[in-house]
Amino acid sequence: MDPRDPVAVAQGLIACESVTPAEGGALALLEGLLTPLGFEVRRPVFTDQNTPDVENLFARRGEGASFVFAGHTDVVPVGEAAAWTQGPFSGAVRNGELFGRGAVDMKGAIACMVAAVARRPEAGPVAFLITGDEEGPAVNGTAKLLDWAQARGETFSACLLGEPSNPQALGDEIKVGRRGSHSGTLTIRGVQGHVAYPHRADNPIRKLQRALAALMDEPLDQGSEHFQPSNLEVVGVESGAGAFNVIPGVATARFNVRYNDGHTWRSLEDTIRSRLNDAIGGDAYDLVFETNTGDAFLTPPGDFVEAIADAVEAETGRRPALTTSGGTSDARFIRAYCPVLEFGLVGQTMHKVDERVAVADLETLTRIYERALVAAAGERP
Amino acid sequence: MDPRDPVAVAQGLIACESVTPAEGGALALLEGLLTPLGFEVRRPVFTDQNTPDVENLFARRGEGASFVFAGHTDVVPVGEAAAWTQGPFSGAVRNGELFGRGAVDMKGAIACMVAAVARRPEAGPVAFLITGDEEGPAVNGTAKLLDWAQARGETFSACLLGEPSNPQALGDEIKVGRRGSHSGTLTIRGVQGHVAYPHRADNPIRKLQRALAALMDEPLDQGSEHFQPSNLEVVGVESGAGAFNVIPGVATARFNVRYNDGHTWRSLEDTIRSRLNDAIGGDAYDLVFETNTGDAFLTPPGDFVEAIADAVEAETGRRPALTTSGGTSDARFIRAYCPVLEFGLVGQTMHKVDERVAVADLETLTRIYERALVAAAGERP
Ligand SMILES: [Zn+2]
Ligand SMILES: [Zn+2]
Repeated sequence: MDPRDPVAVAQGLIACESVTPAEGGALALLEGLLTPLGFEVRRPVFTDQNTPDVENLFARRGEGASFVFAGHTDVVPVGEAAAWTQGPFSGAVRNGELFGRGAVDMKGAIACMVAAVARRPEAGPVAFLITGDEEGPAVNGTAKLLDWAQARGETFSACLLGEPSNPQALGDEIKVGRRGSHSGTLTIRGVQGHVAYPHRADNPIRKLQRALAALMDEPLDQGSEHFQPSNLEVVGVESGAGAFNVIPGVATARFNVRYNDGHTWRSLEDTIRSRLNDAIGGDAYDLVFETNTGDAFLTPPGDFVEAIADAVEAETGRRPALTTSGGTSDARFIRAYCPVLEFGLVGQTMHKVDERVAVADLETLTRIYERALVAAAGERP
Repeated sequence: MDPRDPVAVAQGLIACESVTPAEGGALALLEGLLTPLGFEVRRPVFTDQNTPDVENLFARRGEGASFVFAGHTDVVPVGEAAAWTQGPFSGAVRNGELFGRGAVDMKGAIACMVAAVARRPEAGPVAFLITGDEEGPAVNGTAKLLDWAQARGETFSACLLGEPSNPQALGDEIKVGRRGSHSGTLTIRGVQGHVAYPHRADNPIRKLQRALAALMDEPLDQGSEHFQPSNLEVVGVESGAGAFNVIPGVATARFNVRYNDGHTWRSLEDTIRSRLNDAIGGDAYDLVFETNTGDAFLTPPGDFVEAIADAVEAETGRRPALTTSGGTSDARFIRAYCPVLEFGLVGQTMHKVDERVAVADLETLTRIYERALVAAAGERP
């Protein structure tokens, strides 16, 4: 396999059935490709309670603070296997498109960066930070790998994360930040009783209705310079004894907030409690938040952002928009170590049946990554 | 067993483990008691799809339109058996109280009427209409037994139903009517999606919140001369894919209405649809109502009501209140055949652990029933 050919490398990676948390041979393949290119490769396995052990990969070439490419070889399950027009691990090319689970999210992008470092042997210092636990619980993945690298004395000048950042076409968007995500469960206790005697019961669904209005009716903010407005969605409600003649004793609601840089998870919790206190009183409910895994962050415009945007424009002819929308990513962990941007393939088919990438995009992204390498990592001495 | 002793008869009935839909020997015991008292006894079994076969009892003494006593020998399960201080089928007497499942609901009241007809052999025409399917689905019970009796040419001048009508003490209340009950399920369809991209989804919980407000905020009415205000309770809500990052595609709410004589089930459905249409639009939801089993009804003040109230006052020294509150009962079926009232024991312990009745109440209720018999059924020729 010629490491300078991103299509061949992508096909090799797709053939590894690395459905999270399985390694599937993908990290071994990377080790075999990177070692001859001058990389020192480590594959630490991390463990934790109640979650599978996961293998990860760290590779570095050159000395000093590295320009680090981050990504993941694990993929989501194939879904409805019979609905795929090509085998989900086949790497088949049809009409200029390469099919397979991970084609865009994100074995394709990893293949492009492998090809880029193969074509630019003089670039460095450069590193790969690749996890097998991004689509899973994300416990034994990037967060621990960063800790591990720091403990070994690794330092990073900047990071490019290869998630599919383009909604429609290569060159659309660079992600320069991400909203924070915070989740909670609201429990309202009432008094169960017979529906014919409501005065002896206290129906928690009445308070639930007021709580839902308090959570959803008023926007959390109007957005900020680089972020869209924060948004709260109630993602679940549950109450009821299953009978028409029983007033239930408890009602619950689960919600998630995607929030911008006008909030921290702590200030957000205060805002939500304050709204609930006003609507139904502090004694009426319990509120439990999930462990927060990262507030909103922004890598502000500057040399690094400009260098990557220049690389994208040079190869696509378009100046990418700088955005902060969409879901979370492992960038929420990396931000604490160095400036981080996200630029990868086109995300339209990610996680879907017939995930696929235009072969031409793999070549273009390789060239963008080559330019990014030279601009961000410089020449090795 | 002396049929003139309500305590002995009640103990005999309680010893029959007639947890709905089991006959448990209770109807056989009644047949054995009533036949020597001059009653012609029949025990028809009714069957239906998807519900157990149930045995019932009809007994008549005398010719012409009967004064009919209605009731049920089936009982609810014992619940937490270990929590009973006396065996739930023991009929044990402790400190002047008779313990056992059905003591007040309503084997005790049946025992009182058996004693009353035994003590008043001259009263008539009088009938017993006893089902084994009141606490269960109520499909193979009173409704079919009334049909069956009508088909045999039975007619009724008036009915006394022996449900525990007194909240605190014997003499509190005669039920002269009941509210109607109507139930429905509201389904709101949205569009499922990822919580990070709410503009691509349509969260049905937002419409659910507005629908709940439309159903619950405004009272249905202010009550009427003989009825308290109608009341709607939402008894269940459900939505959610079980993950914090998924906006659900559908939300449901289940509700029950207890309504007075200002509504019919048809007018109530119109009112509810109209409220939902105003709140969320007619295209946003599906609404399915359960089969209605009876609008509100009232046996208006008059000779029958006065005769029963006089009997209660003569034995208790108190004039009972005439009420229409509480849950439904088989009176909703009987109302179509003749005027129906409900007067029985004190309901405080019904359906609970240590269900029990004061022995003194059994004697007092027997005397009330004796007076009722004489007043309502007259003397046999
Ligand atoms: Zn990904
Ligand atoms: Zn009952």
